[in-house]
Amino acid sequence: MTPKIIAFDADDTLWHNEPYFDAAQERFCELFQDYASHQEILGLILNHQVNNLPLYGFGIKAFTLSMIETALQLTQHQISGKGIEQILAIGKELLQKPVELLPNITEVLEQLQGKYKLVVATKGDLKDQHRKLHDSGLGAYFHHIEVMSDKTELDYEKMLGRLDCKAEDFLMIGNSLKSDILPVLNMGGHAIHIPYHTTWAYEKIDFEIEHHNFKSITTITALLPILI
Amino acid sequence: MTPKIIAFDADDTLWHNEPYFDAAQERFCELFQDYASHQEILGLILNHQVNNLPLYGFGIKAFTLSMIETALQLTQHQISGKGIEQILAIGKELLQKPVELLPNITEVLEQLQGKYKLVVATKGDLKDQHRKLHDSGLGAYFHHIEVMSDKTELDYEKMLGRLDCKAEDFLMIGNSLKSDILPVLNMGGHAIHIPYHTTWAYEKIDFEIEHHNFKSITTITALLPILI
Repeated sequence: MTPKIIAFDADDTLWHNEPYFDAAQERFCELFQDYASHQEILGLILNHQVNNLPLYGFGIKAFTLSMIETALQLTQHQISGKGIEQILAIGKELLQKPVELLPNITEVLEQLQGKYKLVVATKGDLKDQHRKLHDSGLGAYFHHIEVMSDKTELDYEKMLGRLDCKAEDFLMIGNSLKSDILPVLNMGGHAIHIPYHTTWAYEKIDFEIEHHNFKSITTITALLPILI
Repeated sequence: MTPKIIAFDADDTLWHNEPYFDAAQERFCELFQDYASHQEILGLILNHQVNNLPLYGFGIKAFTLSMIETALQLTQHQISGKGIEQILAIGKELLQKPVELLPNITEVLEQLQGKYKLVVATKGDLKDQHRKLHDSGLGAYFHHIEVMSDKTELDYEKMLGRLDCKAEDFLMIGNSLKSDILPVLNMGGHAIHIPYHTTWAYEKIDFEIEHHNFKSITTITALLPILI
């Protein structure tokens, strides 16, 4: 495989992310445990998030606003100002979480650097993803960061247009089959899946992928025998 | 002047924006008119916005979250759930405003297209700015849209790196002296100011600019004799 550009997903591919969201949702569930069960509350948050996607997109600010909507619904608008403040605080805390790299990320990027043009391709809040790339210390390995408003085939097409790269010369690496793998394979690109131990419900798909441009590996170090 | 890349600011340069924010703030002030004067409320919103910039960045979701904080402060946390819902609605309404082009935008882009590489360079919510470019019908004139987390010199440098463009080959056109003009001039680029009739308090500067790479014009059509 000799791609010209390799794009890495960021959250749960380069650094840990979903466990922070899980913990944030846990805190939200505790705040409103008198109103509904844990599972019911998680379902309501997800509903609001998905319904709000066309307007809000992805990221922590969207998540915060969807938590506020969920709280209004759960309490039938009886939520207190203190309750709202606690939700805002959950969101702000997420925006300030330290960036914890997954194992061996730096070593692998070190090997790939110079041999390929490396970019980060991620969804989420623009400001927050830039902050995380900065705090990660990985900035120097990447040509740049692409914060995408979504990861559909059309979004990838636009990105490849900007990068002046053909699909067959593009390799995407990430943890989400739905966002990082399927759209890229559909457009003729290459994709490598590195599963993370937990996946946001919205990103789950319930079928297997078999494709000649697709590989699944268990750790990032397994990229090296493929790409070097 | 023969730039290779011309970047247009979007809000209040290509399409109307600030009047929508002004109207949204007006509605917020009416909701909380029993708590403080109009001017005081506007000042509080701005304070929260500016304090939240490092975490939230620019855009409507950030604005919505800052309005909620302002409401908590104004009411000393006595705000009702209905009040919160009304603020969320103000934000969602902003995210669905029709895109109204400024006069003669299409005609000018038509003339420039093909002669220069044109891009949109804007702050704000990623999803929202992509939506507005799509709804504007101007997408075909631009090579792509750059949604920037801020418009400092460093942000422009990163953008020019991605575009593989030297500062002296770059022209920025926009309505904000602070965001569109000063940082670009500082790095050796060219900048043309087209003032809009109203400016967000945060973007105001209180001095005049004189620079050999700088021009100020009153309407976008005045670009044509300069660039064609």
